[in-house]
Amino acid sequence: MVNKLGVELEIRRIAVKDPQEVISQVEEKDTGILTSDWREVVEDDTVDIVIELMGGLEPAKTCILAALRAGKHVVTANKDLVAVSGRELLDAAAEHKCDFLFEAAVAGGIPIIRPMKQCLLGNNITEIMGIVNGTTNFILTKMEQEGMEFQEALDLATELGYAEADPTSDIEGLDAGRKVAIMASIGFHSRVVLDDVHIEGITKITAKDIQYAGEMGCTIKLLGVARCDQEGIEAYVCPMLISGTHPLASVNDSYNAVFLHGDAVENVMFFGRGAGSLPTASAVVGDVFDIARNIQNGCCGRISCSCYKELPIKKMEDTKNSFFLRMLVEDKCGVFTDTANAFAQNQVSLAQIIQRQAPEGTAELVVITDSVREGDLEKAINTLKAQATIKEIAAVLRVYKADKEN
Amino acid sequence: MVNKLGVELEIRRIAVKDPQEVISQVEEKDTGILTSDWREVVEDDTVDIVIELMGGLEPAKTCILAALRAGKHVVTANKDLVAVSGRELLDAAAEHKCDFLFEAAVAGGIPIIRPMKQCLLGNNITEIMGIVNGTTNFILTKMEQEGMEFQEALDLATELGYAEADPTSDIEGLDAGRKVAIMASIGFHSRVVLDDVHIEGITKITAKDIQYAGEMGCTIKLLGVARCDQEGIEAYVCPMLISGTHPLASVNDSYNAVFLHGDAVENVMFFGRGAGSLPTASAVVGDVFDIARNIQNGCCGRISCSCYKELPIKKMEDTKNSFFLRMLVEDKCGVFTDTANAFAQNQVSLAQIIQRQAPEGTAELVVITDSVREGDLEKAINTLKAQATIKEIAAVLRVYKADKEN
Repeated sequence: MVNKLGVELEIRRIAVKDPQEVISQVEEKDTGILTSDWREVVEDDTVDIVIELMGGLEPAKTCILAALRAGKHVVTANKDLVAVSGRELLDAAAEHKCDFLFEAAVAGGIPIIRPMKQCLLGNNITEIMGIVNGTTNFILTKMEQEGMEFQEALDLATELGYAEADPTSDIEGLDAGRKVAIMASIGFHSRVVLDDVHIEGITKITAKDIQYAGEMGCTIKLLGVARCDQEGIEAYVCPMLISGTHPLASVNDSYNAVFLHGDAVENVMFFGRGAGSLPTASAVVGDVFDIARNIQNGCCGRISCSCYKELPIKKMEDTKNSFFLRMLVEDKCGVFTDTANAFAQNQVSLAQIIQRQAPEGTAELVVITDSVREGDLEKAINTLKAQATIKEIAAVLRVYKADKEN
Repeated sequence: MVNKLGVELEIRRIAVKDPQEVISQVEEKDTGILTSDWREVVEDDTVDIVIELMGGLEPAKTCILAALRAGKHVVTANKDLVAVSGRELLDAAAEHKCDFLFEAAVAGGIPIIRPMKQCLLGNNITEIMGIVNGTTNFILTKMEQEGMEFQEALDLATELGYAEADPTSDIEGLDAGRKVAIMASIGFHSRVVLDDVHIEGITKITAKDIQYAGEMGCTIKLLGVARCDQEGIEAYVCPMLISGTHPLASVNDSYNAVFLHGDAVENVMFFGRGAGSLPTASAVVGDVFDIARNIQNGCCGRISCSCYKELPIKKMEDTKNSFFLRMLVEDKCGVFTDTANAFAQNQVSLAQIIQRQAPEGTAELVVITDSVREGDLEKAINTLKAQATIKEIAAVLRVYKADKEN
């Protein structure tokens, strides 16, 4: 470490809920550094850098703000907090000339934030999208490769430790939404918070949707998508169909991958382990080393908040995507014409269609639309719902296409 | 730019071979900044940052050293020079407290150097490998997907502008070798120069090799591989078979991708356009912005040479890989036994075998060995060559396997 940095780092204090629980993992001479009170870390005059890894909004926020106000630099992996209070924390850091770094908050060990803030800064980034939640990617991979239904795949993920005891934040898309908010803020230089991100989880995805998607050349992934154009920013997390030939289609299991589109660099992709203790530690240590270099060179706060724009956030109804719809219809003459009319009346054209007989005089009708304004698609769905021959609209999913394909 | 950086950058001088050739691309009020003499750039007192994009060893080296000695920071995309004289240039930069940055020298616009020097610095990196030459990747992709022979694919690459008029540096692997030297130096903290890298090009690859590789579940890519273990560093560029399920197998056309293995982060991959004027410009501008920040914060030279180790370079005969061999043998009883014995005598065991009839009483015998020390494989080849029944050893190619698979 001395050779890598020219300086030695020393761990002065460690706050944990129950010091007795971890005391056996600490060398005997070091047991004195353990405490159950985070204030003892923040108030220790010999501490220069505070690493916050408790997660959640409080007391993490109070702890980080106290550290910054005491002139201490902060490294965190806390996406929940940064996605909600990023501006306030970065402002506090700037005010006290401190560094506040959070590379680990997005995609674990995969370098994303620093490449955007430094290497790619010359670009006008117009799109950031990717698979940023390992739990849901594991579940969808199992559903696709082994034909499992959602609950069975979730149970397996829990058993193998890929899903937490309460998996809500992962399967409902919140975890991915926080990462999208953070990446969009940095990539587009305009603050995007969790509430700005439209979020849908994967709990309603069925093995049947995945099978039809496959027949149409696509796989289903929980994607985080952020785009920026002259009308503003759109940001959402939802299960989407993506072409089987897209590099993200083969990102399986608990791996993460983020695609960026910049006007100079074109597409770049970053791929790796998005979670786990060691990959997260890799990112945290990278941030700590960066701060150590800043302290050595007297340039703390060298790169701070980069949100100098205030761009509007688009309503979902104004975004454009292709859509996949799976419907149960009456299996009789003229039904398809009615359905096609419902789309056409609302300016929705169809790109792919599969119709197949289903039990009890019904048929399953699966379509992929051309790119359409979401508000128009909703009108088409309302028209469809009003038709007696449409028994059920069983699935409505967005289809990812690169900006230029839309 | 002011908003991104808090400071405005101004272009003061541009040296080009023939100013008249480019004068129409410059606004009239700016034509005075053009010159045909690089010294006018380096000696201009109002210039803080020199961007060297002339390429080649000289006069680039003289120019860069003159700039650094005059206290100017330097950004370059010159892989030829950095791979040979990196240490000397970084030493000169440190001596004069200047920044010397070269993100564009490796894989164009894809962030690689900064992530290694900062984000992943906490890791012990043990392997860096990837596809780092777009021209050869385009050629191999065409050979695989359209069954072309090498010359036909090269002609197409030239026609489409993917290959230069003199393609030697690309097709003989030199360009990739330079990038491997630079990446290995940074990843392993020990200087690796071009001469340390064992280099083989793709000119001898045939459509037949690619076809047999495909039958064996592999594709052929020109890979740059650098590994570091307790015995030292191995670094080479050569066409290798790689499993069709590896993410690099689907990196096609002129795209680049680099895989890193670190003890904490596990595998991370960086993917994008490895060449081209705009992707290169993306990396150059990122470096320039970084220097501008250093100037603003009074911390120039913040991250300099990171090679604090002096690790030995392994001989190729001491490296271990699996091998693909394609042989023409006499098609008669007992030949396969002789061949198998030649391998077994030299501690080479076989993993996959295809034998097929060929014209004029011969057979084509294609094998993939298990992982073997290269010196032992060479002995086996010599034993084979001494056998009258072996007509020709038509191809010997290494097979890439991740470290843990060997």
